[in-house]
Amino acid sequence: MRHPDDPTPERPVASPAAPQQASVFSRLRRAFIGETLSTRRIKHQKLPKFLALPVFSSDAISSSAYATEEMILVLWAGGAAALHLSVGTGCAVALLLAIVAFSYCQTVNAYPQGGGSFIVSSENIGPLFGLSAASALLIGYVLTVAVSIAAGAAALTSAVPSLLPYRLPLCLLFVALVTLANLRGAKESGTLFAPPTYGYIGLILLLVGVGWWKAVSGQLPAAPFQPYTGPTHPLTAFLVLTAFARGCAALTGTEAIADGVQAFRPPESRNAAITLVWMTVILGVLFLGISLLASQLGVVPGVDECGEPVETLVSRLGRTVFGVGPLYYVLQAATMAILVLAANTAYVDFPRLSSILAGRGYAPRQMANLGDRLVFSNGIIVLGIISAVTILIFRGDTHALIPLYALGVFLSFTLSQAGMVRRWLRLRTPRWQFSAALNGIGACTTGVVFLVQAAVNFHDGSWAVLLTIPVGVWILWRIRNHYEATADALTMEGHQESGALHHTVVVVVPDVHRGVMHALRYAKAISGDVEAVYVNTQPTTHEGIYRRVLKATPEPLAPQLEVVSEAVERLRERWDRWTPEIPLVVLDSEYRSLADPLLEYLDGLSERKPVDTITVVIPEFVPQRWWHHALHNQSGLALKRKLGSRANVVVANVRYFLGASEE
Amino acid sequence: MRHPDDPTPERPVASPAAPQQASVFSRLRRAFIGETLSTRRIKHQKLPKFLALPVFSSDAISSSAYATEEMILVLWAGGAAALHLSVGTGCAVALLLAIVAFSYCQTVNAYPQGGGSFIVSSENIGPLFGLSAASALLIGYVLTVAVSIAAGAAALTSAVPSLLPYRLPLCLLFVALVTLANLRGAKESGTLFAPPTYGYIGLILLLVGVGWWKAVSGQLPAAPFQPYTGPTHPLTAFLVLTAFARGCAALTGTEAIADGVQAFRPPESRNAAITLVWMTVILGVLFLGISLLASQLGVVPGVDECGEPVETLVSRLGRTVFGVGPLYYVLQAATMAILVLAANTAYVDFPRLSSILAGRGYAPRQMANLGDRLVFSNGIIVLGIISAVTILIFRGDTHALIPLYALGVFLSFTLSQAGMVRRWLRLRTPRWQFSAALNGIGACTTGVVFLVQAAVNFHDGSWAVLLTIPVGVWILWRIRNHYEATADALTMEGHQESGALHHTVVVVVPDVHRGVMHALRYAKAISGDVEAVYVNTQPTTHEGIYRRVLKATPEPLAPQLEVVSEAVERLRERWDRWTPEIPLVVLDSEYRSLADPLLEYLDGLSERKPVDTITVVIPEFVPQRWWHHALHNQSGLALKRKLGSRANVVVANVRYFLGASEE
Repeated sequence: MRHPDDPTPERPVASPAAPQQASVFSRLRRAFIGETLSTRRIKHQKLPKFLALPVFSSDAISSSAYATEEMILVLWAGGAAALHLSVGTGCAVALLLAIVAFSYCQTVNAYPQGGGSFIVSSENIGPLFGLSAASALLIGYVLTVAVSIAAGAAALTSAVPSLLPYRLPLCLLFVALVTLANLRGAKESGTLFAPPTYGYIGLILLLVGVGWWKAVSGQLPAAPFQPYTGPTHPLTAFLVLTAFARGCAALTGTEAIADGVQAFRPPESRNAAITLVWMTVILGVLFLGISLLASQLGVVPGVDECGEPVETLVSRLGRTVFGVGPLYYVLQAATMAILVLAANTAYVDFPRLSSILAGRGYAPRQMANLGDRLVFSNGIIVLGIISAVTILIFRGDTHALIPLYALGVFLSFTLSQAGMVRRWLRLRTPRWQFSAALNGIGACTTGVVFLVQAAVNFHDGSWAVLLTIPVGVWILWRIRNHYEATADALTMEGHQESGALHHTVVVVVPDVHRGVMHALRYAKAISGDVEAVYVNTQPTTHEGIYRRVLKATPEPLAPQLEVVSEAVERLRERWDRWTPEIPLVVLDSEYRSLADPLLEYLDGLSERKPVDTITVVIPEFVPQRWWHHALHNQSGLALKRKLGSRANVVVANVRYFLGASEE
Repeated sequence: MRHPDDPTPERPVASPAAPQQASVFSRLRRAFIGETLSTRRIKHQKLPKFLALPVFSSDAISSSAYATEEMILVLWAGGAAALHLSVGTGCAVALLLAIVAFSYCQTVNAYPQGGGSFIVSSENIGPLFGLSAASALLIGYVLTVAVSIAAGAAALTSAVPSLLPYRLPLCLLFVALVTLANLRGAKESGTLFAPPTYGYIGLILLLVGVGWWKAVSGQLPAAPFQPYTGPTHPLTAFLVLTAFARGCAALTGTEAIADGVQAFRPPESRNAAITLVWMTVILGVLFLGISLLASQLGVVPGVDECGEPVETLVSRLGRTVFGVGPLYYVLQAATMAILVLAANTAYVDFPRLSSILAGRGYAPRQMANLGDRLVFSNGIIVLGIISAVTILIFRGDTHALIPLYALGVFLSFTLSQAGMVRRWLRLRTPRWQFSAALNGIGACTTGVVFLVQAAVNFHDGSWAVLLTIPVGVWILWRIRNHYEATADALTMEGHQESGALHHTVVVVVPDVHRGVMHALRYAKAISGDVEAVYVNTQPTTHEGIYRRVLKATPEPLAPQLEVVSEAVERLRERWDRWTPEIPLVVLDSEYRSLADPLLEYLDGLSERKPVDTITVVIPEFVPQRWWHHALHNQSGLALKRKLGSRANVVVANVRYFLGASEE
């Protein structure tokens, strides 16, 4: 896997990223994610075509495993005549796929730096359209993960029905595994994901070939029509449009390659375009092959008495053609594997788009951070969490997710193609008329399909996506606004050089001990003006909580300082012995709070003296074992949080290491 | 409720505890827990006898609701002859109760400051015995909560069988309610808890009286013996001893008054002793009354076909004597209420014992903090959490908990009485022989019962308690050791006055903006020796992660500083324009970590210069809305955590408030 002239060692022996005393967490992370990679190694993370195809196309190709099924489930409810329309509907979907693929080939060539819908539509139509595309895509990626994982689990439960009750935990396990694989890095994902993808392609081709041959040779007569057990519908144009809309799930993922041109080996555009054509051909053949075979053999998905699907169409086809034997189980395993891994396309694209958005200020900056393995780890983690929640909401049911799925994808198709049309009209490069016409057809077709999707699936959930897309746009917009406002507030324009700061130090004293002496020494080093404050939160002792406060201070500073207990008297004596040069103020806390009397005192201080900034020094000691922390410093933490509300206060924790000798 | 000459207002208008802009959390807390009370009000939180009885005796008295039942369930499995032994076994338990109560009367008089087993056995036998008592008591308090709440839920599900499946959530709800009631303060608990306790006492007396009269007058003939449906056992001495051991659950809670003498109104000892006698008489009458009535009427608990109890004995008695009418439901409600509230005894004692342990260094100091309502809030919260976990482990089943219950209690009885014997032998006060003999009988009896408990319940769970008690002792001991070691490390003995600190400041620079200027101004105020460091974690830009680093710095400081990118060049130009007087060091982070190159640089700095302490100034800006925090300062937080490993580093966050104008 190492590049021969790679100058960076894989496991840096004494690098700053590998400190000698690694924590349990960092050791666990290294075991699961791998060694931290140097930024210099970025160039080597590019993919050859045969590895790029599984990484970028597993989503698109795997959708053949459920697209036909979703189409058939709609038509079946319309009766035998409707079911016969499945091949025609499938051909319409395949034609749409060809149009979209040709459109995107042009995008790949025009945007060798990566031409996702966000970039193409922002640059050519306007930022709001770009954000709409981005919002639609981000939602689409989440649904890609949810649908693919749910369908993968369905492939498994079709082969092993006893796992049916564990569908949801299985889905969540798969999400966790894919997240981890992606955190390890893109290149390794490629090698990990190639075998299932190629295995699936080969097995489906075998299934279609053998099935077709058996049907033609008369070994497998077509099964008679079985009526649908769920609610039925009359055969209307609406029913056919709904079936077409569901079948369009096959197109999802087609834009992945256009988004990630830069992950290909040079020449990037050419390699990406070739891979795109290959992907389209493979997807088209698999999708049409399954549709034709199912129609020929009269095979429908397995449903229970209420019409709830319990076995996938591919599983039914596999059992019919191959019989229940090793080949059937290998087919199901490959289907499950490619579907679980299909989620990977989203894991490549979601973090990439997030980082592009972050770079332009539309997403939190952390989304652009490269993780240990040179991938955008934060984006991967966020996608994993949101997908898991989505799966939980839809109880891991593919059929509930599909009506929501293709909507966002088709909006981004439309915006991207429309952007390309405007680009050709503007640039007028050679043969621009042809290119504009091609993209124009793409834009119109996908736009119409978007409207169809929104309309026919409205009650089945597309309303939620139609609502979420503008909310997403609003959030992205607000984040950018916030970053711009911050930049304005921080700008150096008009900045006036200020004079020296009036600075004073207040040391919070819990007791007289070496840790406090250490803190006082630090305080004297940073300012000539040091005061010490003791907050008496327990005027009563631990054992007898009924012992009363005893004596008054000689010179009362404020009403709340009047009452001082015995313990405080002892503290004062020790203080005067060890640090008579620093004044000690004792505050009595009637309500036992450490922070409130101190805050009041600080307010009084800034009235008494002309100070700009007060450093509050909190002595802390660092125990030798982690569990000792539970026994110390709890009040210091609470104090620090409360002091955070004062603009003119800087908190400095001066730590004293137990066991370390004082210098 | 207010004391007439109380000088402190209940709701301080502008007190430090009630700042004007209260957070949602603090407003919620005030609504549930109540206003913060001044420490001056401690004296008024003492209880008159009629309120102290329910607070300190609800545990003991309520155990009559399940002790007979547990005894009968054991004997029933031995057949009809065994069941007849229930009255005799009950009398043995009542005798034991009398012995323990008389022993404790002496403790109450000898220890007016509160004579829990921990104090009595530490003072008179030795610290290790004291800790054993403390560990046994703490475990006992947790089990008190678990058993009482589980039995309370059983009283409810007996009356309303449809709630049987929700036993566990009901238990957890009750734990939450009791925890909340206790966080509000002891006095209010007294008034809250008196009606159910007195109601329960009255209703059980009525039940026993009416039942006895109906039996004697022949209106209620004894039911014939029904064989036990669960696994049966031969009638052996072991069976009878087991029944006795289970019946001893009636004694739990007897020590509560001795532990809390100081919560009584003066004269504390006398009032406590009177309450103790009253409690013992009431408990004895209720326990024996129920045992006799059940035996007379031949009533047994309701069990299902596997011998699993589904209805409590008291519920069965109530239905038999009162019939299913309003009186029956009132009885069940009162039983449920006193059982849920019985947990309150533990909520008074567990935090009190924890605070005593904390005062002596055996428990974390926070356990001694008085909360807003002058109760030991941390102890209350800890007890709530551990009890809820215990209930979860035992699925809210009283019968599973009982074998573990009395063990710890009897160990603490034994240690306490043995301590009293040694005390009399040492002090030889008037009539010491009589007192020593009385306590000696108590110690021997409870010691033997402890051994019986441990032996007969070993397989049913007492092994777990026998294991947990020494682990508890070890933990308490280790905590004390740690505090002592800390005190030794911090002692002023041998402390040498050190010279002035050599101090330098390093400002971490993310960019050139007003927030950074603010931080630099602070840095210049605290030291004449200021350096600025920029860590270049992204040698590549957001959009094109493949752009290569471009230029080298004029004077290379270290190998990793050689490569500087375009963005850094721009930063340098701006830096030189605005703050040419402070040197800017640029560190290139090959592994994209902010902390690692900085830590390495700090190590180099302390080698180059004679510095004792380095203040690392991290500029932060405080956004105006809380959700904006997610968009900023994430890397600063991680940096702060990592800098915590360096002993010679003090971190100062200099915050710049967005929207606030620079002074």
